[in-house]
Amino acid sequence: MPPSRARPRATKSEDDDLPKIRSDALKPTLALADQIYRQLADGEIPRMKLPLRTKQNLAFQSREGVWKLGRAMGTRSARKLDGALMLLRTFYLVDFINEMARDAKTSTLRELYYISEAWQEGKFHSEDESNLLIEDLEVLCDRLREDFRLHPEENGASVIGDLTIKERNRKGVVKKINCRDDVGDGGYALPFNVEKEKIEFVGTNAKFIIAIECGGMVDRLAENGFDEKHDAILLHLKGQPARSTRRFLRRVSEELKLPVVVFTDGDPWSFRIYASVAYGAIKTAHLSSYLATPSAEFLGVTASDIENYELPSDKLSEQDIHALEAELTDPRFGTAEWRSEIELMLKNGKKAEQQSLAKYGLNYVTDHYLPEKLTAMGIG
Amino acid sequence: MPPSRARPRATKSEDDDLPKIRSDALKPTLALADQIYRQLADGEIPRMKLPLRTKQNLAFQSREGVWKLGRAMGTRSARKLDGALMLLRTFYLVDFINEMARDAKTSTLRELYYISEAWQEGKFHSEDESNLLIEDLEVLCDRLREDFRLHPEENGASVIGDLTIKERNRKGVVKKINCRDDVGDGGYALPFNVEKEKIEFVGTNAKFIIAIECGGMVDRLAENGFDEKHDAILLHLKGQPARSTRRFLRRVSEELKLPVVVFTDGDPWSFRIYASVAYGAIKTAHLSSYLATPSAEFLGVTASDIENYELPSDKLSEQDIHALEAELTDPRFGTAEWRSEIELMLKNGKKAEQQSLAKYGLNYVTDHYLPEKLTAMGIG
Repeated sequence: MPPSRARPRATKSEDDDLPKIRSDALKPTLALADQIYRQLADGEIPRMKLPLRTKQNLAFQSREGVWKLGRAMGTRSARKLDGALMLLRTFYLVDFINEMARDAKTSTLRELYYISEAWQEGKFHSEDESNLLIEDLEVLCDRLREDFRLHPEENGASVIGDLTIKERNRKGVVKKINCRDDVGDGGYALPFNVEKEKIEFVGTNAKFIIAIECGGMVDRLAENGFDEKHDAILLHLKGQPARSTRRFLRRVSEELKLPVVVFTDGDPWSFRIYASVAYGAIKTAHLSSYLATPSAEFLGVTASDIENYELPSDKLSEQDIHALEAELTDPRFGTAEWRSEIELMLKNGKKAEQQSLAKYGLNYVTDHYLPEKLTAMGIG
Repeated sequence: MPPSRARPRATKSEDDDLPKIRSDALKPTLALADQIYRQLADGEIPRMKLPLRTKQNLAFQSREGVWKLGRAMGTRSARKLDGALMLLRTFYLVDFINEMARDAKTSTLRELYYISEAWQEGKFHSEDESNLLIEDLEVLCDRLREDFRLHPEENGASVIGDLTIKERNRKGVVKKINCRDDVGDGGYALPFNVEKEKIEFVGTNAKFIIAIECGGMVDRLAENGFDEKHDAILLHLKGQPARSTRRFLRRVSEELKLPVVVFTDGDPWSFRIYASVAYGAIKTAHLSSYLATPSAEFLGVTASDIENYELPSDKLSEQDIHALEAELTDPRFGTAEWRSEIELMLKNGKKAEQQSLAKYGLNYVTDHYLPEKLTAMGIG
């Protein structure tokens, strides 16, 4: 179900953002420190201006096809105690980030939370507090938290297919890895940092990449040789995809010019997985131009699929219905195709898992369902 | 905190079970079918005898150091409707397993559940039903569900370190992979089947393997080069470890004769992760001699660590306290060391995450905590 205006949007050349994203991440943090220093030197009460990350300040850029932050700015001043505390933490964090860069270290978000134990009054009281501040710093510095050498616990996705990459590993050694020939059946595991300095694309003969919600379905496609028969790269989204996974898809779409199709369960939550891949999530709206892949197309499972393929289904729960109704007012689902699919699901009151296609046997998904859907999408 | 009687238990030679485990999985399923066939031919009402998998029929084998099924047997007869239904399903399942073997296919547990849509009256009404029947068949046939080509959704663990394996991949091609030099920072992802036919150990220079609960901690050890400095293999347990992860640890301990240490958070749930690695879980008691690694030792985080290292901690919740009290009556925690640690945690009312060691900086865990604990354990 391609959003009709999707495809053209992908052709934002990498030069637009990669240099910007990868250039020295410390400079803007030091500029920030310098600014506060000058304010203090001039006897002013230190303050920082930063874009508001409130829902009211979010706008869906239908031209670019992604969520973006608006122009509204807020000020954090040391005049009030909580403002002063935020400034204090901000510069403990800036200090830690520069220290990590000096020592060539990285840190998990969880470790940072505990690191702050040493910041006396600056100590975070929950990981939410530290995560929010990191996002603020991303906005302030126009950088990614990966540039700050901070990363989450969860792993990125795994990749199976004829894609050759070069990864610069933790010891600085560059390894050339073909994600079909040089890995086990577990595939190639994406590191948390998938930027150019870390991962380079060497080449691929694949015609498209299919991002899949469930590991069992990835195994099914791999076992049935779908990647080779259809020149496809298989990517395991692992549910709601991690940042590195979304960034990887964006790079594949942009640099390899490969179509991205998303294959999930047929329920409102899976629709959101697609939306976050294609248009970005509200939480990371300030990064949409790095993380979103507006050209990504939703393959299924759609509400129509549940009917057309007579799939075993479950009844929609109350929460499912609320989620679908919310999606009807979500600009990311503003196309006629999505509207009709969401309305159909509400009307039929049914959802289905992608593995329900096994009703017709283990080969049905690769021999019938996927080829039919891909042909209809003009892919593969 | 090694259970004092642990180490000697590991030396059960692989010959004891590997041939047994790997010999043709179909034979016993066909023997089962043959038995029912003869009963029908003799005009008897078909029935099957199988060991009871009730908690009452579980015994902790302190000699072997694992949970095992007792001798109590139950009978499933077609005399009653539900018994007849179970027999019907059993042979639909046996048929499907033989069909998969013929077509060289595997199936996820989830797919099997949907496959049963075609079994009319035999159809499963929940995945629990199908999973239970598979476990019954494992007991009846003395085989692993992996032998039946059935596997769960979740992936196995990832491995980082100087371990060279040969994996026979989905296409039958054998790949030699060194889990340090031939993989990216994501490590080597274990496939769901880690038996000899699938994975062979080629060699290692490592002195021990450390199984770690959280991915962030694995990344920390890898980034700090702990695996190379201490000749260690790092394994990410991913919380409660999958079967393939536990089977892999058992094989490493048995075939490579490497000590296994377990490094988790310091709370009752993490203690259970250790117990399932070392002594097996109640749910898979019928497989303990394949999955359990009685020689595995718990490194920490212990209740004493929380005190000795003054770690940032959280208050025990009601559920934590109940879990700890239950562990005091669990034979797997029957050693003096465990008893005193559990009582200490109850007394202090505190739990801590492994990443809380970051309170002292990013290198503390690899430069101080782990070396100190490993020396005390006489390892590394």
